[in-house]
Order: sequence, then C-alpha cells, then structure tokens
Amino acid sequence: MASLNVPSQVPPVAEDCEKLRKAFVGWGTDEACVISILAHRNAMQRSLIRQTYAETFGEDLLKSLADELSGDFERAVLLWILNPAERDALLANEAIKKGSAGHCILMEIACTRSSHHLFLVREDYHIRFKRSLVEDVAHHTSGEFRKILVPFLMAHRYEGPEVNMELATSEAKIIHEKITENAYSHEELIRILTTRSKAQLSATFNSYNDLYGSTINKNLKADPKDKYLAFLRGAIKCLSYPEKYFEKVLRLSMKGFGTDEESLTRVVVTRAEVDMENIKEEYHRRNNVSLENDIKGDTSGDYQRMLLALIGNKSV
Amino acid sequence: MASLNVPSQVPPVAEDCEKLRKAFVGWGTDEACVISILAHRNAMQRSLIRQTYAETFGEDLLKSLADELSGDFERAVLLWILNPAERDALLANEAIKKGSAGHCILMEIACTRSSHHLFLVREDYHIRFKRSLVEDVAHHTSGEFRKILVPFLMAHRYEGPEVNMELATSEAKIIHEKITENAYSHEELIRILTTRSKAQLSATFNSYNDLYGSTINKNLKADPKDKYLAFLRGAIKCLSYPEKYFEKVLRLSMKGFGTDEESLTRVVVTRAEVDMENIKEEYHRRNNVSLENDIKGDTSGDYQRMLLALIGNKSV
Repeated sequence: MASLNVPSQVPPVAEDCEKLRKAFVGWGTDEACVISILAHRNAMQRSLIRQTYAETFGEDLLKSLADELSGDFERAVLLWILNPAERDALLANEAIKKGSAGHCILMEIACTRSSHHLFLVREDYHIRFKRSLVEDVAHHTSGEFRKILVPFLMAHRYEGPEVNMELATSEAKIIHEKITENAYSHEELIRILTTRSKAQLSATFNSYNDLYGSTINKNLKADPKDKYLAFLRGAIKCLSYPEKYFEKVLRLSMKGFGTDEESLTRVVVTRAEVDMENIKEEYHRRNNVSLENDIKGDTSGDYQRMLLALIGNKSV
Repeated sequence: MASLNVPSQVPPVAEDCEKLRKAFVGWGTDEACVISILAHRNAMQRSLIRQTYAETFGEDLLKSLADELSGDFERAVLLWILNPAERDALLANEAIKKGSAGHCILMEIACTRSSHHLFLVREDYHIRFKRSLVEDVAHHTSGEFRKILVPFLMAHRYEGPEVNMELATSEAKIIHEKITENAYSHEELIRILTTRSKAQLSATFNSYNDLYGSTINKNLKADPKDKYLAFLRGAIKCLSYPEKYFEKVLRLSMKGFGTDEESLTRVVVTRAEVDMENIKEEYHRRNNVSLENDIKGDTSGDYQRMLLALIGNKSV
C-alpha cells in the first residue's frame, strides 16, 4: 500500500502552479508551500502540474526547483517530480556510473518493478541517453555481475498467479545443487532467477525451504563479506519480499553515525506511491521503532519534512 | 516497403464480414472471396473484421476459417489474420517446440523486429501461454544457443540513428579478436550483438570491413557445416541487411525438389506489410528471376493465390 497522502479535494492545476510560482518569487523560497503541494500529488497530477507550469511560465518546473532549492531537499523534490519511469532511468544511469557501488541499485530497479514499468524505463533511457540501458550496463560491468545484471534488467517476466509446483521443486533442487557446489553464477541459477515469474519464484523458494529446512538466503552466507553473495541475497529478497529488502536499505541508511541520504531518498521517493505502508510496518516490526521516528532522528529541516510527508505523516 | 495491396476504397467492415460469412455457407467454400478480402486488408482492418465478425455471427473468424480451409492455404490465412505481435508469439512458441530446428526462427524474430514490437510479442506471449517467452526459451535451449538466444529475445535496443565511430572501431576489433580465437560464443561478442543498436552495429560491421578487408560473415565460415556459425551469420544479416536474410530463406525454401512451405509462408506473411518490396528486389537481383515466378513454380491452387496476393500481384 502507498503512503502518499493526496487531499480528497485537489485544487485546480492552475492554482497549484500559481502558488508554486509565488513560492519562488523574490529572495528566498517558500519551501513549506513546495512541500504542501508537491508532496501531496500523485504521479499523474505532478505530471500535469509540470506541463501546465511550463505552458504558463515558459520554464520547466524542474529548472525552477533546481534554481531555488538545494542539498538533499532539492534532490528529493527533483526525483519526486519526475514520473516513475523517467526517475528510474535516471537512477539507473547514475548507478551505472558508480561502478560496483551501483550494482545493487540496478538490481533493486530490475527486481522490484513490474515488467511493464521496466519497459517504460528502457524506453525513457533511450530517449534521454540515446543508448539502451542494457547496452550501457553490459558495457560497464564485467564478470559475475554482468552475467546476472544484464538478464535482470532485460527481464520481461510473466506476472500472472499461475504456478507449476513440479517445476518449483525441480528448480529448487537445481538451486540447492549450485549453492552446494559454490557455483553461484552458474547459468542455470541465473536463468531461474532472471526469467521465472515472481509467483513461480516464490513457490521455488518455499519448496527449497521445505526440502532443505533452510532458506536460500541462509545458505547464501558462505562468506558474509562476499559482495556477489550479498547481491544475490538482496535479489532474492527483492523478488519475494520487497518490503523486507527496502526495510533493510532504510535501516542501514540511518544506522550508526551519519546518514546515507542517497539511499534514504531513493527508497522513500520510489516507494511512497507503491508499498511504503508495508515497508513502514516491516520497519516497525524489525526495529521496534517507527520509520518516522528514525527519520526524525537522522534528518532535519525541509528535507525531513519532505520525507515525512511522503511516508504519510499527516501534519506536514 | 510493404507489398500489401489495399484498395483505395475499402468497403465497410460489415460488408466484408457478410461476404466472408457467405463464402463459408453450404457445401464448399468460396476461397477466392476469402483471398479477395483478407489478402487486401492491413493489420488494423483485419483486426476490425475479426472483431465485427465475432460480434455479428457469435463466432471467432479464426475458427470459421479453420473449419473451412485446409493445408498450407489454411495456415497462411490463419497466420495472416493474427495481428503481427500475436502471430510472432505463436511462431516463437512453435519454434521453441522444434528444438534446434527452431533456433533460427527465434533469432529471425528477435533480430528483425523493432524493440516496441518485441515488447508486444512478449506481452502477447504472457497472455497466451501464461509464461514468458524468454523463460520458455531459456528452459528449452542450452549451451551456446541459449547464451545468445536469451539476450537476443530480451533485447530492447536503442533505435535512434546516433553512432559512435570510436566505439564501432573498438568493438570491430573485439569481434575480430574473438573470431580469430574461434571464441564464437564469447560473452563480449554476444554483448555487442545483443545490446547495441542496429545503427551502431552497422557502423561496427563496416568498420570491420575497413580494418580487415573482409566481411565478418566471410570470417565466420571456418566450418561451413557448423550450425552455430550459420546461426551467427544469419543473425548478422538480420541485423544489418534483413532483406538479404529473407531472400535466402525464400530461396532455400524453394530450392531443388520439394518446397519448405512453412518457411515460405512465414516469410511472406510476416514481411508483406513490412519490407516485401525490398525482399523481392533482392530476390530478383540474386536469382535473376522474380520471386513471383518461383512461387508460381513451387506452389499451386489457393495457397499460391494467397501468397501472390500478399507479395503484391495485382491480378489476385
């Protein structure tokens, strides 16, 4: 369930645009106004605002916002304004440039979005970068990461509920065999993870538990420091329990001293309209404290207010 | 350029449906009427006919046709009636079931259709078979064919005209290196062929010619009987000169005694609305005889009339 809070009576688009324009006029910016409008409109409404703003004031709202805002708040607002496919194309391109640090972000995008959404991301990537997403990933990765990232990002999984239980059992056995042989990038393992539907994979993972009395992810901890194994565990979570995956990313982003604002922003912005309520629930269950509480402890100012609004805090 | 011949004044859909229904009534079927209508309507018009026919007579036109027609003529008409993405999903599924004999058909579909069309094929495959196309291909192929067919069918290539000449040179060198090492299924070779845009690949292939004074396909003839090498040569043709690829499939389908009706039908039906005029031109240039002539020599009856109508013969 989404956490985004849209008022039951949304003002006319022209009124939103006027207010935003006023918030930018003169010295300083009325950040509260920006949040009160943009953090409470869904993707379709934000897209209309952006279009109407450009028609009315002859300037892209993104540009106005980039001129007026700064820091983590700016990044959160700009990512939020983009339509979801456009945003993922941008995030994927940034991730490619990060090298190995970006592998998990690419996997996250590939494994937690729908087949149709991934198609739109690839289309948007073409338009924006004049190359294909997979072309860039294949060119800038190597070894076992390339071997699995390319088919992950190319995936066009079936999304129906049908499950073949015999296949689940036979493929659970294949996965177990490959894990036992430490053949973590074996083509059969990759084939199963990158082509089967999520419903089928869930059945396979359950079958694995039943057959071997342990989860796949437990058995993928041979070397806790191995980055590829961590990547695989993340992928299996994304494919079967995305809210657990996102809970962990959020938890780690605020753990100890300092905050990983990039991850925090990415997860809040990309999940607010999708499943943030489930992630919040998982967060509370795992940490005995609410996500809201931890965000309040780790962030401040307009950035904090923006994140809180997106995760559904009604007072912002 | 397409060869399909649509009259400048197309009768109302209801009239087409009435005529078709009459063609089926009583003993025997009026095949000439079926051809005169269906072989002269584009994909959109055929789809409308199918819809209106079902609404008017409570029966799917496909079923009526399957009941009334038979043999190669039936197959040609049924494939033609399907919308192009639906048809390719069906052809791909048939090809998967053929085992190694189907590899080239899968490659043909993957390498000669647009990115958007391939997306529609994958969507249609989901609906029709409750699994994904790539899932089935990955499950039913192995070795070097799997290694290249899976990314071919997953491809979502950039389709713009932009070309990076430096990249073309460097990747031509990679291809040459792999061919020299007989490493025909090396991941770099596969990465280039399966992810780069067709414009970029053309530049790479041209660069290869300039650098090494020979085409890639000539250098891929180390063992003329090797099926994987033949597959690679076909893929390179499909990606750069599809009309040459299709000319060869047509030529071989009618060479010597007997006819390979399956290939003949597939190429005529799938290309009539796309580039059959270019294929006909290439055919004439290569064989000093027109495609029409050879079809007349190798086929007969309604099947012949259907094919001739589709390749633009105005007397049918």
